[in-house]
Amino acid sequence: MSPAPLTLAEIANLLDGELTCNDSSKLIAGVQTLIKAKANQASFLSNMKYKNDLQSTQAGLVLLSLDAELPEKTSFATIRLDNPYVGFTKLQRYFHPAPIATGVVDESACIHEDAKLAEQVQVDAFVSIAQGVSVGAGSIIGAGCVLEQGVSIGENCLLHPRVVLAQGTQLGDRVVIQAGAVVGSDGFGFAWTGSEYLKIPQVGHVVIEDDVEIGANTCIDRGAIGNTVIKQGAKLDNLIQLAHNVEVGEHTVIAGQAGFAGSTVIGKGCQFGAQSGVAGHLNLVDGTIVGAKAGVIGDIKEKGMVSGFPAVPHRHWLKASALFDRLPAIWNKIKRLG
Amino acid sequence: MSPAPLTLAEIANLLDGELTCNDSSKLIAGVQTLIKAKANQASFLSNMKYKNDLQSTQAGLVLLSLDAELPEKTSFATIRLDNPYVGFTKLQRYFHPAPIATGVVDESACIHEDAKLAEQVQVDAFVSIAQGVSVGAGSIIGAGCVLEQGVSIGENCLLHPRVVLAQGTQLGDRVVIQAGAVVGSDGFGFAWTGSEYLKIPQVGHVVIEDDVEIGANTCIDRGAIGNTVIKQGAKLDNLIQLAHNVEVGEHTVIAGQAGFAGSTVIGKGCQFGAQSGVAGHLNLVDGTIVGAKAGVIGDIKEKGMVSGFPAVPHRHWLKASALFDRLPAIWNKIKRLG
Amino acid sequence: MSPAPLTLAEIANLLDGELTCNDSSKLIAGVQTLIKAKANQASFLSNMKYKNDLQSTQAGLVLLSLDAELPEKTSFATIRLDNPYVGFTKLQRYFHPAPIATGVVDESACIHEDAKLAEQVQVDAFVSIAQGVSVGAGSIIGAGCVLEQGVSIGENCLLHPRVVLAQGTQLGDRVVIQAGAVVGSDGFGFAWTGSEYLKIPQVGHVVIEDDVEIGANTCIDRGAIGNTVIKQGAKLDNLIQLAHNVEVGEHTVIAGQAGFAGSTVIGKGCQFGAQSGVAGHLNLVDGTIVGAKAGVIGDIKEKGMVSGFPAVPHRHWLKASALFDRLPAIWNKIKRLG
Repeated sequence: MSPAPLTLAEIANLLDGELTCNDSSKLIAGVQTLIKAKANQASFLSNMKYKNDLQSTQAGLVLLSLDAELPEKTSFATIRLDNPYVGFTKLQRYFHPAPIATGVVDESACIHEDAKLAEQVQVDAFVSIAQGVSVGAGSIIGAGCVLEQGVSIGENCLLHPRVVLAQGTQLGDRVVIQAGAVVGSDGFGFAWTGSEYLKIPQVGHVVIEDDVEIGANTCIDRGAIGNTVIKQGAKLDNLIQLAHNVEVGEHTVIAGQAGFAGSTVIGKGCQFGAQSGVAGHLNLVDGTIVGAKAGVIGDIKEKGMVSGFPAVPHRHWLKASALFDRLPAIWNKIKRLG
Repeated sequence: MSPAPLTLAEIANLLDGELTCNDSSKLIAGVQTLIKAKANQASFLSNMKYKNDLQSTQAGLVLLSLDAELPEKTSFATIRLDNPYVGFTKLQRYFHPAPIATGVVDESACIHEDAKLAEQVQVDAFVSIAQGVSVGAGSIIGAGCVLEQGVSIGENCLLHPRVVLAQGTQLGDRVVIQAGAVVGSDGFGFAWTGSEYLKIPQVGHVVIEDDVEIGANTCIDRGAIGNTVIKQGAKLDNLIQLAHNVEVGEHTVIAGQAGFAGSTVIGKGCQFGAQSGVAGHLNLVDGTIVGAKAGVIGDIKEKGMVSGFPAVPHRHWLKASALFDRLPAIWNKIKRLG
Repeated sequence: MSPAPLTLAEIANLLDGELTCNDSSKLIAGVQTLIKAKANQASFLSNMKYKNDLQSTQAGLVLLSLDAELPEKTSFATIRLDNPYVGFTKLQRYFHPAPIATGVVDESACIHEDAKLAEQVQVDAFVSIAQGVSVGAGSIIGAGCVLEQGVSIGENCLLHPRVVLAQGTQLGDRVVIQAGAVVGSDGFGFAWTGSEYLKIPQVGHVVIEDDVEIGANTCIDRGAIGNTVIKQGAKLDNLIQLAHNVEVGEHTVIAGQAGFAGSTVIGKGCQFGAQSGVAGHLNLVDGTIVGAKAGVIGDIKEKGMVSGFPAVPHRHWLKASALFDRLPAIWNKIKRLG
């Protein structure tokens, strides 16, 4: 059953914004893009690329920044907000609340008798739960997940289907893991003896703190000796590679297909673009921003954005890239010179 | 049981090509490379890199382009074709037909009583099918697949093992999905409140049209509000990341490990090289070709090939790359100049 | 039950190194990093980046290279070794032996009556084993693995959870495959007919020789006609894409997220950095080293390291990259010149 529609007044109250409208009792039943919204739906303007859509939108309500300009004639109500994107998010979260664990353990699940499931845990079909596993109240374990020995899961976590948590993995509360992710695979550690690579046992674990999200088919290796750690509130997209003993700081965000080599320590509030990479045994300071496809091969000691490979300060890279593009013209000029 | 051998005459008829041979009743039982083919097998020459193999091949039949030159002495029959690669493909498809659904539903499968399976659907072991799912006639659902609530699958689809189709995913007819792919994972959407990232509910779906193929462990995120769409005949390789609300045009081909950020719209008949990337909210015109490892950060309005990062026209990139390689020599020249 | 502690004398014997200590009967119960080790634990110095940790370590034993310098005062015993990293590995392997198959076949597993499991094979929950599969003695098949028709697995292999081995895949002995890997997915082969891409049946297989390790969620495509082959002792990290008919030579090591296009042949003892890529139909000589993020687009005929895209000899790339970084300054100089 969907949540009940809200009046404009209720929404203004929920979002703590300034409402302008003819009738604050008008009902809003959902959220849509400016182009697709109907009269009983809210929309929002956050990316200015879409501001022309304000002229044609049929939305009944538009969330706007405090200083956004309106077309001359509009038929929609507005709510002014410091951050309309956050407003949109909160409204969308009202209309689409996170799934709530049913408390049903599917009869096909294979659960070791020593495993401890708290109350109201949902376990879907073909889940395998080994000895010594504990799952906190309200958590959902999707179909086909595998929780190996000693795994510990906090409260209200959501594991989408087919997630693997290898031996000893620890999750805090409200962790979300998308389908197919592998947490706790062996780190890539081998010693060359002169005739073969000898596998180094990977005996550390993966520790994931509260409110972390891990993307689909992302791989997070267990530590070689100590742990691989992802701190509170960090968000990782799909198909990311995180090697053994990496540490990811609080509220750091990593886009798809990025990769991190072993033992690198990433600060708080960092951002990593898609397909970026970071070499091993490095330290990246809080607030580091790494551009898409960039490759970091040295420590980063000052907050700011780097790009390119080897990565350099972003503005520097922009200039050098523009000149790279002009190399044929530059070369012609040099030839004329001498 | 393998399909019956074909006579040279039957093959010429099947491929609609011009046969040259001593005995058109000779039987051919399969297809091999020029180097490995035996007298009762066909081969083909398509990539001219392998033309010297014509001299030593033992093949009984070789498919050739209309203008390919032959060595002086050959013992094989030939069939001349506009496109010998298509001829090879058709012959290989005769000898190796696609698997046909057995109509057997494995007793271990967990199928909601409301799910609708059409006739002749094959469901393998440990498949989980939720409420409101429908599967069209002749489709095969491989072992360990998870079909979440409201998933709709057309006719004659082939899901290899361990595919996840998240809530509401729609597949057309004859869609092939390789093992481990995740379709419908949450898009990577969070709003920063000043103290934390608030997850934006991802409530759109993934729509995949007829004749699409999706590679192993590829991830396709559901839309944030509207849908992520992959249009008719598009082919995606392994380990690709497709973010929320991306649209991929008809017959577009994407090589392995490529990535696409959110809301980008890709035209028809495009080609993307391996490990290429495209930023979000862009439009790429029909017929765009993106080189391997390239990174596209702006709209592409003219058909043609781009390379590099940031991507520029391919020929331009080739010139600039050649000069990049000569930068040490260029620098020496500049130093001599002044 | 953990292995018994070892005396310093026993360790010196096991590692064949020169022991310096006060009391060779002192017991060591495990291995830790220099910083975290306690008096009953061993540690090692291999990466000189960590040499200052020697001053503060509480370790009871440190494995060192023959020529490593010690701080003036130390309380730990030492064992001098040609290669302390190999010594660390051997000691860690003593304390953390590889898992031994229990010989238990979980009753939930779905095993075709024709499949042949040798003695002491362990099969975990929800494993699907098709007709004609054979599994050698001592192998472990983790939860949710899918072994398709005709798969052959040697002795003492370890398949972590949710691995797919597609039809006809062959593994040698002691092969380790991390969770979620897909071996034997269809190669990406289509022929354009002028109006659609026609799928080329992929009828070759994947052959993996002894002592190979494959990383989590890595994808290895089956051959189009012949086989895709990974030779003895090669090690592949996570999220790697290996296309159809690639051959990987003995003891070659490939880091995470690297990709290889079809029919390329890689020599012995090669090394590939993370996120590197190699185009199709190439030959790379034994001992090739490819830097992180590099893209190889031509044959490599001489042993050595290449970097960049297109890849060039590494030292050349280092120089050109340094000058790329200085392009703004170079351009200013050129403008002054004329």
